[in-house]
Amino acid sequence: MADFALIKDLVEKNTTKIVLVVMDGLGGLPRQPGGRTELEEAYTPNMDRLAAEGICGLHEPIGPGITPGSGPSHLALFGYDPIRYEIGRGVLEAVGIDFPLTPQDLAARGNFCTIDAAGNVVDRRAGRIPTEVNEKLSARLQAEVRIPGVEVFVRPVREHRFVLVLRGEGLDPALSETDPQVVGKPPLPVRPLRPEAARTADLVNQFIEQARRILADSHPANMVLLRGFAKYPNLPQMGDVFGVRAAAIAAYPMYRGLAKLVGMTALPAGSTLEDEFAALERGWPDYDFFYLHVKKTDSSGEDGNFEQKVHIIEEVDRLIPRLVALKPDVVVITGDHSTPAVLKGHSWHPVPILLWARTCRPDLADSFGERACMKGSLGRFPAVDIMPLALAHALRLAKFGA
Amino acid sequence: MADFALIKDLVEKNTTKIVLVVMDGLGGLPRQPGGRTELEEAYTPNMDRLAAEGICGLHEPIGPGITPGSGPSHLALFGYDPIRYEIGRGVLEAVGIDFPLTPQDLAARGNFCTIDAAGNVVDRRAGRIPTEVNEKLSARLQAEVRIPGVEVFVRPVREHRFVLVLRGEGLDPALSETDPQVVGKPPLPVRPLRPEAARTADLVNQFIEQARRILADSHPANMVLLRGFAKYPNLPQMGDVFGVRAAAIAAYPMYRGLAKLVGMTALPAGSTLEDEFAALERGWPDYDFFYLHVKKTDSSGEDGNFEQKVHIIEEVDRLIPRLVALKPDVVVITGDHSTPAVLKGHSWHPVPILLWARTCRPDLADSFGERACMKGSLGRFPAVDIMPLALAHALRLAKFGA
Repeated sequence: MADFALIKDLVEKNTTKIVLVVMDGLGGLPRQPGGRTELEEAYTPNMDRLAAEGICGLHEPIGPGITPGSGPSHLALFGYDPIRYEIGRGVLEAVGIDFPLTPQDLAARGNFCTIDAAGNVVDRRAGRIPTEVNEKLSARLQAEVRIPGVEVFVRPVREHRFVLVLRGEGLDPALSETDPQVVGKPPLPVRPLRPEAARTADLVNQFIEQARRILADSHPANMVLLRGFAKYPNLPQMGDVFGVRAAAIAAYPMYRGLAKLVGMTALPAGSTLEDEFAALERGWPDYDFFYLHVKKTDSSGEDGNFEQKVHIIEEVDRLIPRLVALKPDVVVITGDHSTPAVLKGHSWHPVPILLWARTCRPDLADSFGERACMKGSLGRFPAVDIMPLALAHALRLAKFGA
Repeated sequence: MADFALIKDLVEKNTTKIVLVVMDGLGGLPRQPGGRTELEEAYTPNMDRLAAEGICGLHEPIGPGITPGSGPSHLALFGYDPIRYEIGRGVLEAVGIDFPLTPQDLAARGNFCTIDAAGNVVDRRAGRIPTEVNEKLSARLQAEVRIPGVEVFVRPVREHRFVLVLRGEGLDPALSETDPQVVGKPPLPVRPLRPEAARTADLVNQFIEQARRILADSHPANMVLLRGFAKYPNLPQMGDVFGVRAAAIAAYPMYRGLAKLVGMTALPAGSTLEDEFAALERGWPDYDFFYLHVKKTDSSGEDGNFEQKVHIIEEVDRLIPRLVALKPDVVVITGDHSTPAVLKGHSWHPVPILLWARTCRPDLADSFGERACMKGSLGRFPAVDIMPLALAHALRLAKFGA
């Protein structure tokens, strides 16, 4: 129900520990009608045991029929109403490279692109230039662009992608994007989407024109495209709302960034699954709540690689005993959304979830899979309910009313 | 959904009768992983038959993960949004002893306590003085306390507990409590929790100082502690919203009091389960809606007495044929929250419910128990939906829209 005022009133602190394992894009679909999903196909004896002892269900990150992006679906898992607390892509990208955003900042995703002599886009990604080239060009923009009234930050991400941050008073993110989405057309100027954004549009257009001039001799990366304009979201912090010291373990920058926006500490996570579980073990004494993110379930789903997704799920399962050995009080294992390999992309299908704790009432789910979860006592429910449930099973919520 | 405006528009009156049996704290947990809950353990052939013929599910009084107090959980069962309509403990206590509260009244729970010569609390419950002593001391306070500008009422409850009511214009319940919660410290003065409550705080502090003087020679009950300050809540009345003449049958004062706040008539209920079912039979011709409350399921859960809770449930089951013999149109049997004996207290676990009526569509629940209810067609759902469902099955709700 995502009622922060209520939850905040009820929260009590204790020494319990909660672990939220997010296998990105976990939910799947069978390859043949009536067949098994990726999770059902995977051999997962450790998660099956947790599912049998705990409670299961299928959560909906945003709502019935809504396919979530990673930002809103993670916010929902963290207990935040994903429609109320929208996070723009520019902000996600900025925090994902550890850029220290402030409340004054407006961030955008940038692409280096190639334009021809007529000024039309001929490659929206500038041939995916090497990250080292990006770094040099970003540094040059950083050094040479000057816009009166705002500080400008240009930071490389990887390949053709960079982040633009404008810092100043009264910046308004209601701006149109400059990517024409097709080749053969010129980059669009930024337009204000409401009158109050007129000044900000003008500032961004100044950036674009200066960038065009500065990059003129840098073919193929001789122009920029900007999209995903967003202001820093002043999100309630998990420590304040839920009373937990929260740590994030995620190999991919965007998920660390997202976790930091809600007040988690990003632990050094390495790059492999084993690294992530080792980070969990190292961080164990110092936090109450751990978010551990597995990226490759989603990427293999996006690639349409059913077998690979099955394989990643099995890899995670083999590491679950290391988590169990830490003696957590509450374990939640789920995804942030479905990414069925047969659809090669995110989907709206509800996401299987298991919640294990000593205080679980037995239900009818006896293994971890989409169909098994349909028999679970959690039913089909909104993802924002997961955090209050986890806190309750950690005995961290006091009684409401007398 | 607790949309009173909608329901009120649709309500129609007829001659059907609805019975809501509330076994307080009904929901449970098994003693061993995978074992049976109290309700699953109990032999309940009569309720099992109603469950098999009716529809089942698990309701959440407040929301996922939220452990309810008895006040809000009952409001939810009666169809009232328990977060919008909060009732303070002082008010509950006052109506529970049949004190005729008016909209001008501010009520508080009082304890007689023992203080030493230095003024520090040495026993927060004054050795649980006999109720007769309480009655004398309350009468003495009633006779001697004088506070300009307000009427003062002091009424005994039982043992060391009494109710204080101030009646006057502009009283504000935003007051701190006086109970220091530990012995060895003096009672706290009342502080206003917002500026508008300053005058009320002053009036209550006058009561406290006069009580201190009046009780000085009444050791061990030589001082008072006050908490749960609350104003009379002007709740919509069940007759107006739901179009029913509603009767409450409850041996315990607090539940009668709560029912009266929503406009029910409290029938003389005796003190045993048999007395309550006899009251139901006597009241049958005169009302449309009956709320019958069973307290001891909760008390045995609070005591951690699994077997006793099983026994009480079985006792209720043996009386169900008397209810069925009255030929009710709709029977709802549930709890107001879970009180698993293994947790010795209220919990957040969803509460099993059966709804029996001739208009029920068959579902997959074939007996009355937590796991059986998970197979029921009601699923996991908010308790405020129970009243509209009961009214619908009593054919008391007209079509919405043309």
